[in-house]
Amino acid sequence: MTNSKNVCYYIFGKGSIKMLPKLLNSRRTNYTDYAIFLVDSYFINSQFVEGLPKQQQDMLYFVSTVDEPTTNDIDSLYEDILQKKNSIPCCVVGIGGGCTLDTAKAISNLLTNGGNAEDYQGWDLVKAPGVYKIGIPTISGTGAESSRTCVLINKNKNMKFGMNSEYSIFDQLILDPDLTATVPRNQYFYTGMDTYIHCIESLKGRHRHPIADAFSEQALILCKTVFGSTDMQCSENREKLMVASYLGGCAIANSYVGIVHPLSAGLSTVLNIHHGLGNCLVMNVMEEFYPEETLEFHEFVKKQGVELPKGITARLNEEGFDRLYESTIIHEKPLINALVEDFKTILTKSKVIEIFKRI
Amino acid sequence: MTNSKNVCYYIFGKGSIKMLPKLLNSRRTNYTDYAIFLVDSYFINSQFVEGLPKQQQDMLYFVSTVDEPTTNDIDSLYEDILQKKNSIPCCVVGIGGGCTLDTAKAISNLLTNGGNAEDYQGWDLVKAPGVYKIGIPTISGTGAESSRTCVLINKNKNMKFGMNSEYSIFDQLILDPDLTATVPRNQYFYTGMDTYIHCIESLKGRHRHPIADAFSEQALILCKTVFGSTDMQCSENREKLMVASYLGGCAIANSYVGIVHPLSAGLSTVLNIHHGLGNCLVMNVMEEFYPEETLEFHEFVKKQGVELPKGITARLNEEGFDRLYESTIIHEKPLINALVEDFKTILTKSKVIEIFKRI
Repeated sequence: MTNSKNVCYYIFGKGSIKMLPKLLNSRRTNYTDYAIFLVDSYFINSQFVEGLPKQQQDMLYFVSTVDEPTTNDIDSLYEDILQKKNSIPCCVVGIGGGCTLDTAKAISNLLTNGGNAEDYQGWDLVKAPGVYKIGIPTISGTGAESSRTCVLINKNKNMKFGMNSEYSIFDQLILDPDLTATVPRNQYFYTGMDTYIHCIESLKGRHRHPIADAFSEQALILCKTVFGSTDMQCSENREKLMVASYLGGCAIANSYVGIVHPLSAGLSTVLNIHHGLGNCLVMNVMEEFYPEETLEFHEFVKKQGVELPKGITARLNEEGFDRLYESTIIHEKPLINALVEDFKTILTKSKVIEIFKRI
Repeated sequence: MTNSKNVCYYIFGKGSIKMLPKLLNSRRTNYTDYAIFLVDSYFINSQFVEGLPKQQQDMLYFVSTVDEPTTNDIDSLYEDILQKKNSIPCCVVGIGGGCTLDTAKAISNLLTNGGNAEDYQGWDLVKAPGVYKIGIPTISGTGAESSRTCVLINKNKNMKFGMNSEYSIFDQLILDPDLTATVPRNQYFYTGMDTYIHCIESLKGRHRHPIADAFSEQALILCKTVFGSTDMQCSENREKLMVASYLGGCAIANSYVGIVHPLSAGLSTVLNIHHGLGNCLVMNVMEEFYPEETLEFHEFVKKQGVELPKGITARLNEEGFDRLYESTIIHEKPLINALVEDFKTILTKSKVIEIFKRI
């Protein structure tokens, strides 16, 4: 029976980013204490970054979101910090989307646990609490702000896996809907749909946790309101989607995803497709497994007029499809949750490849 | 802008009470470390109490639920502990309904802050974190397990008020629906309705917090399922109501109640009516302020065939009604939330007394 951990503190509201200086100051007990800011590369040269409460001794890294973070990225970042500083920071601040928040969590764990990022990919392998960390999402949907994982691509092992651990949970969140005002339309949809997708996967799975169910159900109500409306990005809907994302992360911390996420992980691992888009590409062809939800998804796409790229796997050869299959089927927990213990009897290699060919 | 605090850890599930020994052991770092168990008097001489992981040095108090806890009760309990022990406990464990959980929170705060209970009645007056505390509800509805308050009657000041503080939040919860299996039918309804009532009060109030709203909405969906069903106490519904209660407590931590709670507090202060029953008696006559919800409440009462006592205020004299009015109107925050800044223009003395006369 799991002892579920919540994010300790959260501040929700327009303009709540203004609380960051105060929160950060409360972590600085000594004038040499330094913080590490990990900021989505979207904000390079922005006024937003200029305005961050950065002190001379602090470190600022921009997290590239061209590709999703890899274990190698985290290891390199860790080495760089070790070279430049001889103490651990008083705080890690992650500001951005899922890639950035997950990078913040992973580096926080590595700074206190040592070793390599891949040592902690799996369930409950992190031994010690990470550095105190503040999460500030600038896009809604991944649930990274409230989940107990940080997902990294491991190129050596041809897999995408999380550090599933209570130590991968933020200590403090600032949930400021103003920060999502400039998200490009397609990206807003792809990422927002992550909440919809992991909540339907959780509710359709075999594993039941009544609190997770309640969170998922409420997150879905909010997603349906947002993506069924005429202006998914209006102020009120950005607020709703930020709540949905938070609740979805809380839900998934107590449950499992289903078929979409493993297939989407395959797309990320082999084709560098981002998680949100990968989920949408898979969800688009899930008639067999999630029939009603697939129809609803099609309606959302139509209603919002967003574009889904086509022919993603058109140029893949047999070896490419083999790798897609392998990097999907490795995710046993969610596939058992969605199907049966012996899930490979349903999700056969030919079935998996057939799905990928339709993407 | 509020920095909202969550309960740090929760274990949800049938049989989760079995996790208590392990949780408690992790708090005992020295063989002299003692825990204080505060257990609802309902469990006196029960096998349940026999089975608690109590060690020789621990203290066990039964919390009477004949009347709701007063500041004097807490002060007496505190003195008794001080007389018998010369150190603070490693853990306070509260097992019971709202009275017991609130007693556990209040004593936990007093043990580290000193003084008298009434010193901390109000908003954010507790200065230091309380003793580590584990909450184990045995009835669902009050939300005491997840709220940031512990409500005490102050006889000297003729008021019922909470220690509203982040230090009044439990560190760990065990949410075991098996523990609510023996709750008497009427009591189950009265207490469960507390969630329904504080959630509608929150959603109908002027103060908005999107996360509180999401929690309230989901809690209401669950309450409607439970109290609209033919067997509100079946295993599945007890599970749902326990989730609703938890969510309702989380909601109210970020929002305010409305008109029902102040009137109900008046009934508790003057007539020793328990909170759950008091809420129901008030809700029953709220046509003017919550028309649809009052109708729905009437349907729940009918559907579940529960009894609501009548003529509660029939024997009161003028001075009694004056005291009822005074101990209602003192709750300015919820009344401003429900009505207007100048709420006394709507909730006049004659209006308040007219409502009380109909109860």
